[in-house]
Amino acid sequence: MAISLHQVVEALGGSLHGNPHKQVTGLASLKQAESSDISFLSNVKYERELAECKAACVIVSPHLAAVAEKRGDYIVTDQPYVYFALLTQFWKQQHTPKSAGSIHPSAVVDTKAVVDKTAVIGALCVLEAGARIGANTVLKSRVTVAENCVVGDNCLLHSGVVIGADGFGFAPHKSATGLNWVKIEQLGAVQIGNDVEIGANTCIDRGALHDTVIEDGVKLDNLIQIGHNVRIGRHTVIAAASALAGSTEIGAYCMIGGCVSIAGHLTIAPHTEISGASVVTHSIHKAGTYTGLFPLDDNASWGKNAAALKQLSALRDRLRKLEKTHK
Amino acid sequence: MAISLHQVVEALGGSLHGNPHKQVTGLASLKQAESSDISFLSNVKYERELAECKAACVIVSPHLAAVAEKRGDYIVTDQPYVYFALLTQFWKQQHTPKSAGSIHPSAVVDTKAVVDKTAVIGALCVLEAGARIGANTVLKSRVTVAENCVVGDNCLLHSGVVIGADGFGFAPHKSATGLNWVKIEQLGAVQIGNDVEIGANTCIDRGALHDTVIEDGVKLDNLIQIGHNVRIGRHTVIAAASALAGSTEIGAYCMIGGCVSIAGHLTIAPHTEISGASVVTHSIHKAGTYTGLFPLDDNASWGKNAAALKQLSALRDRLRKLEKTHK
Amino acid sequence: MAISLHQVVEALGGSLHGNPHKQVTGLASLKQAESSDISFLSNVKYERELAECKAACVIVSPHLAAVAEKRGDYIVTDQPYVYFALLTQFWKQQHTPKSAGSIHPSAVVDTKAVVDKTAVIGALCVLEAGARIGANTVLKSRVTVAENCVVGDNCLLHSGVVIGADGFGFAPHKSATGLNWVKIEQLGAVQIGNDVEIGANTCIDRGALHDTVIEDGVKLDNLIQIGHNVRIGRHTVIAAASALAGSTEIGAYCMIGGCVSIAGHLTIAPHTEISGASVVTHSIHKAGTYTGLFPLDDNASWGKNAAALKQLSALRDRLRKLEKTHK
Repeated sequence: MAISLHQVVEALGGSLHGNPHKQVTGLASLKQAESSDISFLSNVKYERELAECKAACVIVSPHLAAVAEKRGDYIVTDQPYVYFALLTQFWKQQHTPKSAGSIHPSAVVDTKAVVDKTAVIGALCVLEAGARIGANTVLKSRVTVAENCVVGDNCLLHSGVVIGADGFGFAPHKSATGLNWVKIEQLGAVQIGNDVEIGANTCIDRGALHDTVIEDGVKLDNLIQIGHNVRIGRHTVIAAASALAGSTEIGAYCMIGGCVSIAGHLTIAPHTEISGASVVTHSIHKAGTYTGLFPLDDNASWGKNAAALKQLSALRDRLRKLEKTHK
Repeated sequence: MAISLHQVVEALGGSLHGNPHKQVTGLASLKQAESSDISFLSNVKYERELAECKAACVIVSPHLAAVAEKRGDYIVTDQPYVYFALLTQFWKQQHTPKSAGSIHPSAVVDTKAVVDKTAVIGALCVLEAGARIGANTVLKSRVTVAENCVVGDNCLLHSGVVIGADGFGFAPHKSATGLNWVKIEQLGAVQIGNDVEIGANTCIDRGALHDTVIEDGVKLDNLIQIGHNVRIGRHTVIAAASALAGSTEIGAYCMIGGCVSIAGHLTIAPHTEISGASVVTHSIHKAGTYTGLFPLDDNASWGKNAAALKQLSALRDRLRKLEKTHK
Repeated sequence: MAISLHQVVEALGGSLHGNPHKQVTGLASLKQAESSDISFLSNVKYERELAECKAACVIVSPHLAAVAEKRGDYIVTDQPYVYFALLTQFWKQQHTPKSAGSIHPSAVVDTKAVVDKTAVIGALCVLEAGARIGANTVLKSRVTVAENCVVGDNCLLHSGVVIGADGFGFAPHKSATGLNWVKIEQLGAVQIGNDVEIGANTCIDRGALHDTVIEDGVKLDNLIQIGHNVRIGRHTVIAAASALAGSTEIGAYCMIGGCVSIAGHLTIAPHTEISGASVVTHSIHKAGTYTGLFPLDDNASWGKNAAALKQLSALRDRLRKLEKTHK
């Protein structure tokens, strides 16, 4: 299947410099593009690759137009990466047009669940009583949305997602031998806004007394844990395998890497960035980039340094003592 | 829906100081309670919030009765948090009475599986041959209990749980280019005791030769990995996204935070506490609280300290040398 | 059910020293073996346990034959652990013969999916259009293989696995208040080679423009995240709860522990070993064993050392200064 450059700019805008009748049959990175692909340059550091790119057409920003001109056909646009993203959407739409609203016959939908007629509910999904699914939202296969949980419009939930399992709440009861645990029923639900994407096998627990809230535009990757009563501010993104403990509030526009662990009852300021694999045990009140992970080393070196680390406080004291003697 | 304070104390005990006919329509924290809610005070440090709390009634311990008296209606009980937990159970029972034993018609139950007649098997669950589900146990939607695995009485397994996938066992076979892996069939199963709760998408692998065992009263949060041959002692709790490698034995009454990683073939003493995001590579023979995680810092500071950390052992040697010279 | 030692060596080779008619009714470790079990010795350090082992027969390597002789019946083979692995396979085959190719009636298989007639598709699996499943491959219950994803021959995918969810790709779009995210449709798929095992609830995302690739013989444990465009080289093993970010390439024959986090766009050399819970933020060009994790300590000691760690770079500077003064 092929589309012409004319079709591209007609659909997505930008100014085409080249042959509007030229056909492209695929999308590719600068390096991997063949002569019938369309590619893009989002990062100035790949400028060198631009000259050698074999693509039929390249999407560039205005200040790279001169370089692109020497190479061949190109489309100029202010945000080439956004343009490319929209092109992937246009491309997918051409190849596999979005299905009209539908509920797969294998899905188990409670009679008290409410599904917008434009929503797509995939195979073997479960919607419990009181679940609500908004307009144009797509649930891929095997998604559970439990009692009274709400998913907004234009959301995409991938396979295996669980919305509204019980939060992890137990009251400690002292017994003769130790603590037993009395279940605290989780009486809240989950509210998910519009334009939210949730990755495969990610879990968002229902609130204990009030609701867990995911605001508009949030993007969650796979295998993420969102504890009860958490609130995630709009347009925040979280990469895979991260875990947020209960009652933590993440501000809007945060960028949280993969494998990040955030303790419960914290507040993270809007626009905060947290590097992958970091552990957050205190609130962050000032936006910035934060990191905390042990640097990788060859095993032997790590072993020596890790052993020394267990004496670090003592080493500091010895250094202080030496400094004093030396004055 | 509303219940009276009389109904509360009739069901749960405690001594009511106030109007037994007063109706409450919700449960809430001290801070968020409205005038028709019931609330509780579990922690003395929230005593100030008690005075300002708008709730219809507050559950307190005996030594806070005097403070509560000044505010309005209250119930006195020895363990307010446990009382509140029981109240959430009573509340849920009033609003959505527990269903009688049932197997959802969409569940796939092998003819050789045994399900107690009081158990509830949710939509799209899979029970393989030899699986056994005990009395009053509830499997939410999309739970798998594989061949010969046993779940006791009064358990609650959340959506997406997988009980009895194969443990990760392979024998290394030397080839000319490197190690190939020969599968070790996992001939054991999983035994889960009574009163166990297991969170969404958590996995408990079957044992290699014997069984993986989860004792009575254990509470596991979401997205936890339990390797083959593990044993978890009674009433131990583990928060979300933790992973226990094969053949490790966790004692009774432990409290393990979220995102904790525990290596294989270890023994953890009863009553041990492990902070979230810690990594355990050696057995713990003495109960206590253990921690090991890199503190978060702004990215630039982290970078400098992490670089220095890779020379820490050398720094220690230099300090020693300096100390010797200085004697 | 019992098998004779004669049946064992007839099926698996090795030289039997003992009574070929002796029946064994179970497999067990040296320590746990009863008098009707068969056991094995893979590691010289357990030689002491060999003498005391009660098993009906023990599998040993040639240099331990003399020790085994004193104890009772034994089988000699070059690689006892591999022999034992093959014995578990033989054992399982005797007890629960592999089913012929079949698709469980509850599975949802698109008319455009292609399933080899010898493959076994378990209960409540979902195969979308263009999915291909190879010969003798087994999908346990509740596995999703999404559009155009390919699984080779002799693979085993455990319950809850999701193959081909969208990779996590969004173009940042500047708005007045912060970054919004424009979805990049993921136009690639997932290619899985032969002899691959994938653990419960593990997710492998489809590529953005090209395919995510898992080569022959790879073994992945439970709850692993494989990002889009990743390539994992043949016979590499990865333990549970690890996460690989997008576009990273792992060489062949690597051994990656559990809870390992690997950043995106990295290259890991073949034959590399990474210790559990380590974080990899740079490419590894030289094979070796690498580690990076904070050592566990009692909470108080950890607190002191972690505090000092935040001043480590400054401590190094102070030490340098002291050294200079001292020259």
